[in-house]
Amino acid sequence: MSLSFKHLTSTKQLTRDDTDAILKVSQDMETLLEKKGGDNRLQGKVLASLFYEPSTRTRLSFETAMLRLGGEVVTADGFQFSSLYKGETIEDTIMVVGQYADIICMRHPEGGSADKAASVSPVPFINAGDGPKQHPTQAILDLYTIQKEIGHIDNLHITMVGDLRYGRTVHSLSFLLGLYENVTFTLVSPAELTMPEKVTDFFKEKGISYTESEEMEKALDADIVYMTRVQKERFADQSEYDRLKLKYILTPKHLEGKNCTIMHPLPRVGEIDPAVDSNPRAAYFREVRNGMITRMALLSMLLQAA
Amino acid sequence: MSLSFKHLTSTKQLTRDDTDAILKVSQDMETLLEKKGGDNRLQGKVLASLFYEPSTRTRLSFETAMLRLGGEVVTADGFQFSSLYKGETIEDTIMVVGQYADIICMRHPEGGSADKAASVSPVPFINAGDGPKQHPTQAILDLYTIQKEIGHIDNLHITMVGDLRYGRTVHSLSFLLGLYENVTFTLVSPAELTMPEKVTDFFKEKGISYTESEEMEKALDADIVYMTRVQKERFADQSEYDRLKLKYILTPKHLEGKNCTIMHPLPRVGEIDPAVDSNPRAAYFREVRNGMITRMALLSMLLQAA
Amino acid sequence: MSLSFKHLTSTKQLTRDDTDAILKVSQDMETLLEKKGGDNRLQGKVLASLFYEPSTRTRLSFETAMLRLGGEVVTADGFQFSSLYKGETIEDTIMVVGQYADIICMRHPEGGSADKAASVSPVPFINAGDGPKQHPTQAILDLYTIQKEIGHIDNLHITMVGDLRYGRTVHSLSFLLGLYENVTFTLVSPAELTMPEKVTDFFKEKGISYTESEEMEKALDADIVYMTRVQKERFADQSEYDRLKLKYILTPKHLEGKNCTIMHPLPRVGEIDPAVDSNPRAAYFREVRNGMITRMALLSMLLQAA
Repeated sequence: MSLSFKHLTSTKQLTRDDTDAILKVSQDMETLLEKKGGDNRLQGKVLASLFYEPSTRTRLSFETAMLRLGGEVVTADGFQFSSLYKGETIEDTIMVVGQYADIICMRHPEGGSADKAASVSPVPFINAGDGPKQHPTQAILDLYTIQKEIGHIDNLHITMVGDLRYGRTVHSLSFLLGLYENVTFTLVSPAELTMPEKVTDFFKEKGISYTESEEMEKALDADIVYMTRVQKERFADQSEYDRLKLKYILTPKHLEGKNCTIMHPLPRVGEIDPAVDSNPRAAYFREVRNGMITRMALLSMLLQAA
Repeated sequence: MSLSFKHLTSTKQLTRDDTDAILKVSQDMETLLEKKGGDNRLQGKVLASLFYEPSTRTRLSFETAMLRLGGEVVTADGFQFSSLYKGETIEDTIMVVGQYADIICMRHPEGGSADKAASVSPVPFINAGDGPKQHPTQAILDLYTIQKEIGHIDNLHITMVGDLRYGRTVHSLSFLLGLYENVTFTLVSPAELTMPEKVTDFFKEKGISYTESEEMEKALDADIVYMTRVQKERFADQSEYDRLKLKYILTPKHLEGKNCTIMHPLPRVGEIDPAVDSNPRAAYFREVRNGMITRMALLSMLLQAA
Repeated sequence: MSLSFKHLTSTKQLTRDDTDAILKVSQDMETLLEKKGGDNRLQGKVLASLFYEPSTRTRLSFETAMLRLGGEVVTADGFQFSSLYKGETIEDTIMVVGQYADIICMRHPEGGSADKAASVSPVPFINAGDGPKQHPTQAILDLYTIQKEIGHIDNLHITMVGDLRYGRTVHSLSFLLGLYENVTFTLVSPAELTMPEKVTDFFKEKGISYTESEEMEKALDADIVYMTRVQKERFADQSEYDRLKLKYILTPKHLEGKNCTIMHPLPRVGEIDPAVDSNPRAAYFREVRNGMITRMALLSMLLQAA
């Protein structure tokens, strides 16, 4: 199956045909993974995994995805970026690494770095997060998780909780859900951390129904409750943080009589009581596995091996 | 061959049946290594090698062991632990990494971290050193080295030299040798660095014969002389360190007319004169190779491929 | 094909027979790479890639070279060198790593470290740069690039531009070109950064023709123009640097009506205007790919698989 693009830098590139194809291939990958652990379709191919800022979770997910399809991996990580210190441009680094590798994924702290990289890359390029801007593979794994957990994405009701202002993840997912029919959003956040206009304007433009609230407890009658971290450093007034933080800690008590599936991009730092983990609708560790599965799909599709 | 455990966190878990099986499989691995360099029995399996503190030697030993059996490796190392900085618990990290990998080894500076990890790991877990507590694979490679060098472990006479108080290695090995018949210990250390009661109490309880001494030279009539680093920073009185350090530097002169095999967990920083290296009974570099061999055995046994 | 050495620490070891063989095998590797991406001739072999100082470019080049021939790689990089901090000698580190791996490459900041390593290594050893001294695989990839781009190395006219005093790369390449017939050099640099006597004495001794100049523009009628970085920190007088730096920035205008091929060891930090990149004789990114190709050749020759 083929995609409408050679490089993946943003969820905005994705058409409904693209997401349909990715979800289909991901399902095949999940079956392959559970039956045989992987195969050798990417034998002889090398992924360059470039992480200008550390993100162990995302990096290991890409790397294990590549290895499980028989490919190989080279890694450059954080402090190892000597050429960065020598003042090389991102474009030159990518033109060099593209001589060695068959495909590149990159995490970089600077917004827009992914577009720079894709503009020159001689091989397929995947954005693994460029600062505050985009992290498209996170949105794709969330989409696959919703499909698996709920059985449909059209007609979904999703509640997003926490820091909706700075959370790159919820923005990317919101845009991606805009490709589907009749999705409704409940947006729960402190007043300081409401969803930014770039997203709510998008909702209005597409005629997507959404409501905003500060109360998590009243918003749990949804198909999905998507939790995120609220970071202390976002608050000018620490007492305001102290007042709010308890409102956004999900416990088993909240879930009594509820039927919602719980997602979280992880890492969590207290927003979900570990006692919730044993709830069969706590999907966040399955979500992690879906990250590897959807990256297996993307790597094989971009390398024409799906 | 099978083991009595799924996760290896401590030598205390090991039964005599376990060590018998591990030594047997290690011998098979050594034969395989010398004949063919390895095989493909772990093809499709991925080891996650998590080192929260650096230990290049141990990490490369695990990773080459995995690769030589056809497996694959992903690594997270030191400064790369972003999620640690974001406040994620060890348990969450292991539950995440266990979604990606088929087996995990972890080095962590905190005592007890290995037990926390093993308590939640969805895949086999191996402790590669948890702070001051345990480093079971070091003890296993030492055991295999003794078997290879001396031909037997029952009826062994072993002299341990140096920092016996803080040396995790000599404690783990002492407990492990307690599984064997009629092993006798000579314990040579400065008064500040004698073997702790947790070990000598174990000797008394098991009826194991041991003697303590400050004199290395008189203790070299043993099957094994196991040297360790004495660290300057252990001494309140530096002149005491200066007086002692020369007593514990093994030179070719010490070994004249002796028949003992020399072991050392490495790295050494002066305790063994490099002129000793050419002595055929200097076993410490063979010990290093035995580390890879015994880890090949453990990885394949825990992954049901031995 | 075989080489006159087991370990490669310096270009001074290389005979004309060696370079002939390496260029021949490199050509085979390039054909293999373009046709099939690689093969499995190094299956079961493990490269230890030891970088005591970061050099992402060189490290990824060695590692992808190994992986493309079916070999495996373990990496130790920068901050991860725990044993270094514990005071272990280079010799001990190499004797340990040589128990795990089948071949070792090492970058180290200390001149002479490569010779120390090679003197004890139980497996083939390749110097990937030892401080100010040698970086032989860079010179080999440059040689292969010249052969590919120009079609011959005998009778070459090469212009070297920039920091000729401290540039390890131009020294190594100069010595290596001394193996060939009738090579002539034009050496363009600021007065502060002229070619050192160790190289010009070598030219005189071998009867090699060279001229020195401060003017880049008049020196572009050569087969090869080899550009290098001029580092600001080399100048006591910053106004002198400001005066000179513009003289050594190559732009499309300089190349009008010229027929020279442009090389650069990279990274560049302004010496070559990116507008030059589209010139078909801009060879510096092909040079990068040739780095992987020549390292595929060297790894397979040193492991007796060429």
